[in-house]
Amino acid sequence: MSDTKAPDASRRSERSRRAIYAAALDLVSEQGYAKTTVEGIAARAGVGKQTIYRWWPANSKAAVLLEAFLDLADQAARAVGAEDAGAGIPDTGDLAADLRLVLRATVDELNDPVFDRPTRALAAEGIVDPALGAEFTAKLLEPQLQAYVRRIEAAQAAGDADPDVDPRLALELLVGPLHHRWLHRTLPLTHAYADSLVDLVLRGLAPRT
Amino acid sequence: MSDTKAPDASRRSERSRRAIYAAALDLVSEQGYAKTTVEGIAARAGVGKQTIYRWWPANSKAAVLLEAFLDLADQAARAVGAEDAGAGIPDTGDLAADLRLVLRATVDELNDPVFDRPTRALAAEGIVDPALGAEFTAKLLEPQLQAYVRRIEAAQAAGDADPDVDPRLALELLVGPLHHRWLHRTLPLTHAYADSLVDLVLRGLAPRT
Repeated sequence: MSDTKAPDASRRSERSRRAIYAAALDLVSEQGYAKTTVEGIAARAGVGKQTIYRWWPANSKAAVLLEAFLDLADQAARAVGAEDAGAGIPDTGDLAADLRLVLRATVDELNDPVFDRPTRALAAEGIVDPALGAEFTAKLLEPQLQAYVRRIEAAQAAGDADPDVDPRLALELLVGPLHHRWLHRTLPLTHAYADSLVDLVLRGLAPRT
Repeated sequence: MSDTKAPDASRRSERSRRAIYAAALDLVSEQGYAKTTVEGIAARAGVGKQTIYRWWPANSKAAVLLEAFLDLADQAARAVGAEDAGAGIPDTGDLAADLRLVLRATVDELNDPVFDRPTRALAAEGIVDPALGAEFTAKLLEPQLQAYVRRIEAAQAAGDADPDVDPRLALELLVGPLHHRWLHRTLPLTHAYADSLVDLVLRGLAPRT
């Protein structure tokens, strides 16, 4: 093997990886998680199934799906010029407006039919598989939650939110209800709902006078 | 068939049903949901597997698990003399104390290792299977949520909570964060957490002066 071959091999490998992500998302979206197999993903991606088992040895189907979402989050962050997926909450100086924007965008994502089945499948696997769940939480969820922490801390520093409130608790009041409604399909997820949620939570965060 | 046989048949049937619930909960708790089979549940319960397929024709394993939880909720409600599982929030006149009591009890339930795997398995199935999820939400979740609605409405009538706040939104601020933390195992679920959650949510519900 000469060194000159390395870039080509690396490009091929990167292409295969991307093809595997796309195949996993497409198949789960089309036929559901239960009917999607590693063999099916490999066939659609044009790779051997041993490639998938080698790259994702444990709970391969779910692990591929998790990395596909991590890749999407990375791409989305890069598209807006951010360094990582957790840098995504704007700070215009208007906390209510900034949170409404982010929660409305989350509502739109959760309502997107293309991602409904893959997102649900990944959440469900994380709930029953502690190892995958820990990876999901550490790599995908926690960076998003930390973005809320930073935005709430900035509001506290600016005098727009009570500095005695735990930002971690405050952010859970925003994302918890939204995910509860989505996961259990109790009531529709709408922009109006996102706005009401922000308004009620901010009443609790208001600086004490 | 004479009428005199009906009570015996009904008792036998009731005994089998209960044995199936117990077997499903035990097996999922012991070996996880993925490894639990309808055959295994039938064998442990001492019934034929056709009995299970006849009584629960669609998504049988998950449907048995859902009914096992409904049965537990019924029993728990009857144990405290309530008519149904949704009647469970006390009204001592102190909204904060009543909510802390209920959320602390929920924390204890979610932390109970015996029910951890079955509860997670049922939640995960409901997330990916819309029909089962709708049944889970309508029969098990919604009665619990309605108990919060009634308690918050009583507080509004008593002047302890702002009557302009939507009780439905308010209850989601209580149960959403708790379930988010449990499902994604982000941080520990403790009584102190339940108390802080109630305190922060009630700040948002305080009557406007």
